[in-house]
Amino acid sequence: QSYKTNDAFANRGMTLEKEIVETNKYYLESGKAVIHKKPTPVQVVQVDYPKRSAAVIKEAYYQKPSTTDFNGLYKGKHIDFEAKETKNKQSLPFTNIHSHQVEHMKRIEEHGGVTFFIIRFTAINETYLLPLSPFLTKWEEQFNGGRKSLPYNFITEHGYLIPFQLQAKVNYLQIVDDVYINGGDCND
Amino acid sequence: QSYKTNDAFANRGMTLEKEIVETNKYYLESGKAVIHKKPTPVQVVQVDYPKRSAAVIKEAYYQKPSTTDFNGLYKGKHIDFEAKETKNKQSLPFTNIHSHQVEHMKRIEEHGGVTFFIIRFTAINETYLLPLSPFLTKWEEQFNGGRKSLPYNFITEHGYLIPFQLQAKVNYLQIVDDVYINGGDCND
Ligand SMILES: [Mg+2]
Ligand SMILES: [Mg+2]
Repeated sequence: QSYKTNDAFANRGMTLEKEIVETNKYYLESGKAVIHKKPTPVQVVQVDYPKRSAAVIKEAYYQKPSTTDFNGLYKGKHIDFEAKETKNKQSLPFTNIHSHQVEHMKRIEEHGGVTFFIIRFTAINETYLLPLSPFLTKWEEQFNGGRKSLPYNFITEHGYLIPFQLQAKVNYLQIVDDVYINGGDCND
Repeated sequence: QSYKTNDAFANRGMTLEKEIVETNKYYLESGKAVIHKKPTPVQVVQVDYPKRSAAVIKEAYYQKPSTTDFNGLYKGKHIDFEAKETKNKQSLPFTNIHSHQVEHMKRIEEHGGVTFFIIRFTAINETYLLPLSPFLTKWEEQFNGGRKSLPYNFITEHGYLIPFQLQAKVNYLQIVDDVYINGGDCND
């Protein structure tokens, strides 16, 4: 099967990502923060160079990203996070979180950056910011026989509900202010 | 003309970029910093989904990046920079610096990040770190009839020669330490 599309890959359950991209655009234009989505890495195998027109990639493959979806700068702090959404009602499965992404986030925290997950439960349309440290406790447990998912209740207990605003549909910087900038991380 | 290659595009005069990628790998593995090259953005037009194998991109185009080549985190600071090399002996032409990249770098500085150019003169194999502020004076002049390039002498005067080390071929963090972390920017 072959599809003509601008974002065949991007469309797979990425409403959350698109809303964050829009939110970041609002943050950028209002001078609040500079946060961008990293392009999906592509392994290019074959390129055509037609005369007098742009190079055409004729064969390429999506690669697994080695870092996170988003990074940037807010109030002098390095911000780095991963967005995940699930149709599941009871938990977020670990299946599409890669261990090298988690390793990357650990490094970000070690070097003084702010790093977290933005997790959406699409069935109930609730979106949470979950700091790295509570995530890590559950993540590590899976390698010692623990469950291979993050329970919804764990996320509501250790995470922060992200408010919806018309201009900032996923207004996560409000939570970043409360948790990392003004108050200190309540989960530590 | 059609080329089979892993990095047809990447090969166009990007020795400097590759050396910075290697340097970053060393920084990462030695726990010094977390700095990555952003993937080149690609506009995907057509994708095939063969049964039981990976999606194949059949038509795609390189896009102009809207930000810079590299960003990351060092000693709690957000680092963001653009690498440029030239065969030219007298100056770095402005032709392949995009104004939206410069706008991005201005925003990074406004929000408390560290941002600069790494410029290599390949003919003499000298590589400089040039902070944003001296760059901007020359960049703005071009719109008032000034020259459309950065003179070599200007770069040597306002920039900092980046030392070569075996493990860190473009050891720019040593300059970042001197200019932004320990000493303050001598060019301000
Ligand atoms: Mg994601
Ligand atoms: Mg470059």
